[in-house]
Amino acid sequence: MSALSVEDLRGGIPESRHQVSVAVTDADGRLIAHAGQPDLRTFMRSAAKPFQALPVIEDGAADRFALSSEELALACASHNSERRQVELVRGLLARIGCGESDLACGPHRPLSQDLALPTERDAASDDVPRSPVASNCSGKHGAMLALARHHGWTIEGYERAEHQVQGRCRDTMARWTGLSPSDIGEAVDGCGVVTFAVPLRAMATAFARLARSDEAAPRRVVAAMTGHPDLVAGRGRPCTALMQAYPGRLLTKVGAEGVYGAALLDRGLGIALKVEDGHTWAAVVALIAVLGALDVEPAPANVLPRFASPELRNTRGVVVGCMESRGGIASAD
Amino acid sequence: MSALSVEDLRGGIPESRHQVSVAVTDADGRLIAHAGQPDLRTFMRSAAKPFQALPVIEDGAADRFALSSEELALACASHNSERRQVELVRGLLARIGCGESDLACGPHRPLSQDLALPTERDAASDDVPRSPVASNCSGKHGAMLALARHHGWTIEGYERAEHQVQGRCRDTMARWTGLSPSDIGEAVDGCGVVTFAVPLRAMATAFARLARSDEAAPRRVVAAMTGHPDLVAGRGRPCTALMQAYPGRLLTKVGAEGVYGAALLDRGLGIALKVEDGHTWAAVVALIAVLGALDVEPAPANVLPRFASPELRNTRGVVVGCMESRGGIASAD
Repeated sequence: MSALSVEDLRGGIPESRHQVSVAVTDADGRLIAHAGQPDLRTFMRSAAKPFQALPVIEDGAADRFALSSEELALACASHNSERRQVELVRGLLARIGCGESDLACGPHRPLSQDLALPTERDAASDDVPRSPVASNCSGKHGAMLALARHHGWTIEGYERAEHQVQGRCRDTMARWTGLSPSDIGEAVDGCGVVTFAVPLRAMATAFARLARSDEAAPRRVVAAMTGHPDLVAGRGRPCTALMQAYPGRLLTKVGAEGVYGAALLDRGLGIALKVEDGHTWAAVVALIAVLGALDVEPAPANVLPRFASPELRNTRGVVVGCMESRGGIASAD
Repeated sequence: MSALSVEDLRGGIPESRHQVSVAVTDADGRLIAHAGQPDLRTFMRSAAKPFQALPVIEDGAADRFALSSEELALACASHNSERRQVELVRGLLARIGCGESDLACGPHRPLSQDLALPTERDAASDDVPRSPVASNCSGKHGAMLALARHHGWTIEGYERAEHQVQGRCRDTMARWTGLSPSDIGEAVDGCGVVTFAVPLRAMATAFARLARSDEAAPRRVVAAMTGHPDLVAGRGRPCTALMQAYPGRLLTKVGAEGVYGAALLDRGLGIALKVEDGHTWAAVVALIAVLGALDVEPAPANVLPRFASPELRNTRGVVVGCMESRGGIASAD
C-alpha cells in the first residue's frame, strides 16, 4: 500500500501531519493508482456540485430559464463571494421568480479569507455583506430553485432529503458513481442540502465519466467549469488557478473537510482524494502531488509552486514554515 | 501501543478522523500512561506560556513592577481579546514604560471566534480593534518586555532567538523539561517569539513539576492561572471552563496546532497531548477523554459534555454532527 501525507513544517521541523487517501480511476471504475485507502467512504461535500447541476440541465430547467454558461459555472462553484459572482446569482434568482429569502443556505465569511492565497485574494469580497446570496454555495442553491420552479415543485424545503430536488440529486449521484442509492450515505451539508458519502473509488469514477461522457448535460457542465474557472472558486483559489493553468485539460472541484475531485479531461481519468483529518490546504498540496505523479505536463509543482508548497505565515505576516507532500501514489496492479 | 483518536461525525457517519499522541508522567519523568507516540517531538506553542512566565518572577521583574496575579494570569494566557483582558495588558505596558508599538505580536481576529463555544462566547470582543495589544499573546509579550526592562536589556528585538529574554525562556524550558538546550528544537511562533519543540514526555514532565514544585515562582504561576481562569482564555473556552470546574485541582494550557498541556495539581501528574494533524477542537475532546481515563472526579465528560462531544453546526446554525473520542490511553508497564 502506498502512503501519501502532507507535513506542516515550522522552521524546518515537522509540526503537524496529514494522511491522505487517493483513488485514480478510469470511466469504467478501474483503479489506475491509489494511496492510503482508495475505498474510504467520505462525504463529497462541494465536490458533488458538478453532478448536482446535471438534473437542472437534463430536466430542461437550464433551457427553460436560459441559464448562461456563467450561471452553470456558479451552480458548480464554491465561490469567493466576489461582487460579480454574487451579482450573477442575484440575476438568476430574479429570472426564476425567486428572492434571496428563498435561499436555504446560511451566511458565512468569504471563503477567500481561509482558502485563497493571502497575496492574491480579492479583498473587496470582505465587504460583501454576509448573507445567503453571498454563501459560497448560492449558485448551487439558485440552480436547485430553478429545478423546483421548472417542475412546479414547492420551493419551501427544497434543501431537504425528502424533497424532489434532492431525490433527483441522489439518483444522479447513484448513476454517476455506479452505486445504488441505498449504498450512498447521507447527511446535512454545510449549506443545508443533502451531502453524499461514497467510496473514493466511486467518486473518482464519477469524475472520469464526466471527462468521457458525450451526453449534452455533462458536456455543458464541463464547458461551463473549464470556461469560467474564475467563477468556480475565485481569485487566489486553487481550483481557479489550476483550471486556468491547464485550460480544457483539467477540471477540479474542492469539497469541504479536505476533499478534492478532479478529472483529467484529455485522458479520461478521475481523481478523488480525502485528507483523513479534513485539512483543506493539505488537500491542495496532495492534489498537486497527485497530478504531478500522473505526469501532468508541465509539472504542476513548477507551474503553481505556491500551491505545491504553501507558505505558512504568522500573525505578523512573517513566513514561519511551509507545507510539503511526502510519499505518493502507487500504480494499481 | 494504545491508540486515541477523535472522529468528526456528520449525521452519524464518520467524516474526518484525528490521531492523538499522549504522555502522562510524574514529576520524575516516569511515564504513567500513554497513547500513540508519547515521545513524539512537537512544538509546545502557547502551552509553553506558564514556563515562559517563570523568569519574569524568578529574576525579580514581577516584584519590581508589582505584577498582579491577574497580570501573571494574562502572561500565561491565550486570551480572547475581551475588553478587560486587553485593558489589563494596556495597564501593564504603561507601568513598565512601554507602549503598544513595542509589542512584537501581530493582530488577528479574536480566538473566541474559532476556539470558544458559539453559544457562550463574548460577542463584544468581536468589536475590539485588531491590534497587537489584542493579540491573544499580548500578556506574554508584556511580561517579556517587563523582563527586558528589569534587566536593562534592549526592548527592540526582544522576541528574537538571540535576545536575552528568549535565552532565559530557553534555559527555563530546558530546566523544566529536563532536556539540554541543544536538544530543544526552535522556530518562530505565531506571535513572533521563539517556540520550542520537545518530546511529549518531556513536556508532560514539565507540567508535573509545575504541580509538585515548592519554589515561589511556579507557585505564583499556578496560583495566578487557577485563581483567574477567566483571564487565561475567556468566555466559552475550554481552559477557562476546565479550571473553573476543578478549582485548584487542575491546570490546563492550550497550544496552537492541537496541543494541550495540563497538570493534575493534587496528584502531581503532568499531561501533554498533540493531535497529529493540528486540529484544535480534537485536542479539547482528547483532553477531556484523557482526564476521564485518569479518573478525574467528577467525570469531565459529565461536567463538560459540550467539550467532551462538541456539536458541529452548519452555516444555518443547524446541528449536523458532533465530535467523539475513540480508544484511549494505556497505563505504562
